[in-house]
Amino acid sequence: MIDRLIQQIIAKKNPSVVGLDTMLEYVPGHVVNNYGGQQLDLEGAANAIYEFNKAILDAVYEYIPAVKIQIACYELYGPHGLEAFRKTVQYARSKDLLVIGDIKRNDIGSTAKAYASAYLGQTQLKNGAVRVFDVDFATVNPYLGSDGVMPFIEICKSNGKGIFVLVKTSNPSSGEFQDLDVRTGKLYQKVAAKVNEWGKDLIGSAGYSQVGAVVGATYPRQLEELRSLMPGAFFLIPGYGAQGGSAGDIVGGFNSDGLGAIINSSRSVICAYMRSPWKEEFSPREFADAARAEVLRMRREIDAGLSQKRIRPW
Amino acid sequence: MIDRLIQQIIAKKNPSVVGLDTMLEYVPGHVVNNYGGQQLDLEGAANAIYEFNKAILDAVYEYIPAVKIQIACYELYGPHGLEAFRKTVQYARSKDLLVIGDIKRNDIGSTAKAYASAYLGQTQLKNGAVRVFDVDFATVNPYLGSDGVMPFIEICKSNGKGIFVLVKTSNPSSGEFQDLDVRTGKLYQKVAAKVNEWGKDLIGSAGYSQVGAVVGATYPRQLEELRSLMPGAFFLIPGYGAQGGSAGDIVGGFNSDGLGAIINSSRSVICAYMRSPWKEEFSPREFADAARAEVLRMRREIDAGLSQKRIRPW
Repeated sequence: MIDRLIQQIIAKKNPSVVGLDTMLEYVPGHVVNNYGGQQLDLEGAANAIYEFNKAILDAVYEYIPAVKIQIACYELYGPHGLEAFRKTVQYARSKDLLVIGDIKRNDIGSTAKAYASAYLGQTQLKNGAVRVFDVDFATVNPYLGSDGVMPFIEICKSNGKGIFVLVKTSNPSSGEFQDLDVRTGKLYQKVAAKVNEWGKDLIGSAGYSQVGAVVGATYPRQLEELRSLMPGAFFLIPGYGAQGGSAGDIVGGFNSDGLGAIINSSRSVICAYMRSPWKEEFSPREFADAARAEVLRMRREIDAGLSQKRIRPW
Repeated sequence: MIDRLIQQIIAKKNPSVVGLDTMLEYVPGHVVNNYGGQQLDLEGAANAIYEFNKAILDAVYEYIPAVKIQIACYELYGPHGLEAFRKTVQYARSKDLLVIGDIKRNDIGSTAKAYASAYLGQTQLKNGAVRVFDVDFATVNPYLGSDGVMPFIEICKSNGKGIFVLVKTSNPSSGEFQDLDVRTGKLYQKVAAKVNEWGKDLIGSAGYSQVGAVVGATYPRQLEELRSLMPGAFFLIPGYGAQGGSAGDIVGGFNSDGLGAIINSSRSVICAYMRSPWKEEFSPREFADAARAEVLRMRREIDAGLSQKRIRPW
């Protein structure tokens, strides 16, 4: 799956992915009106979100390698929301996009296996097995140690899927635990070493593992350091744009082959129509066009950053 | 909510809770046959699981203060599984049980708020707000630091709910990160100090906070140590029974008032009918009676442990 991601990045000339962190408040009124307007219920909200996502995907799929779907935004609308999540995954895959389920799941033993099966594998019924949410990559929280991560890796092995392990997250308080000094460095460095170990049997043809890492754009120094500590791990980099990371900040997340990172942008794309400069140019009915304009702007910005460092792979 | 939990523990003379980690393989054939037998689909599986849960709840609700529902087991069956989760929560609450959603969620900012709203708060629609999964307590993973926990605590404050933060988990590799030496002790001790800080404004009338901690039964020395480090935190203790923790091991998780801990048991209760000694006594059709027998046995065992230490609160 990591090889397919790399192919897509090169074909689309773009390492940036769109985060479909869609909440009802982002959906323009004319879409909401199709599902009950002011009276819409949870099912209506979920359907409105799915319609919004489909239009965004139609507008941007040609320009991006993958989407990241934040499941919290769907759980907010209950089982109907989860159905909208499932359908959004299917729709993105029908457009040949890779799908990263941003689920940050973590547990142990048979419970971790249940999560891994639900998102990356198959659910066993009495008479065969079925795929349920079926994303290509999932994010995983490492706090429980190898017991919490290996069940995901087992399912990755048998299903050709990948994970991104949280190593150094983008938020202000990420250092409270992740930056603690442990005997041999920082906690996040210890987690990074484990990511190498967890991923060593899952290396694809371009030298990258199915076991990647989440590393925030907002800590450029650590991003560069982690790049050298985990040369074979693909990075999923959040925090670009809205959270303050710039194109200069994220270049350190790439290897000299111009690969090794994907940059996520969520609200600045899906809410582009509500924000300057795009809100001056696009009406709410043109929300998908505004999203496309922002995707293309971001691609140019990152391309310029990579070309300055002479590490563009395309 | 923590005060209600304490009332329930004293009224039922039982600090042990039942974990409804129900998977299809645990459901006896005569229940599966009501939903398609060998041909059952995801919806049938979810309905079979809900019927199984209802029967277990009917058999045990008089004897336990709360149930812990492991959401991974429901996500495995997709949106229908999540509907079975939601209905199980409702049914347990209709029996006056408190419900712990074992969801181990973690994220930051608006995403963490979305999780907290979905499970502990309300979802905002256009015309008012609705409760979605509506559990009383949720488990939360602290790896992202305060940014990842405070949104849960804000929702707890406004909705009278509680959380259990993962501090020292019960699994073999929990020490890989949690036991690392940091400058001022171990990582889990640092997390424990934060739990005190996060919970200090949410203390109920018995002196316990709405912000509790998950501490495994399988590390009795750390359990005792954490008891003294977090005197005002209620502990959710997994790993009793199936994972190897004994009644002697968990006594250290209680304060001298006989409170401060709930002990979870999942498979040894819900799968009692499949296991010795109960499988010799009960048929698969009597799975709920077997579950009740195991709940009562466990209550006696813990009661004996507490009475030996002379710290029973009833």
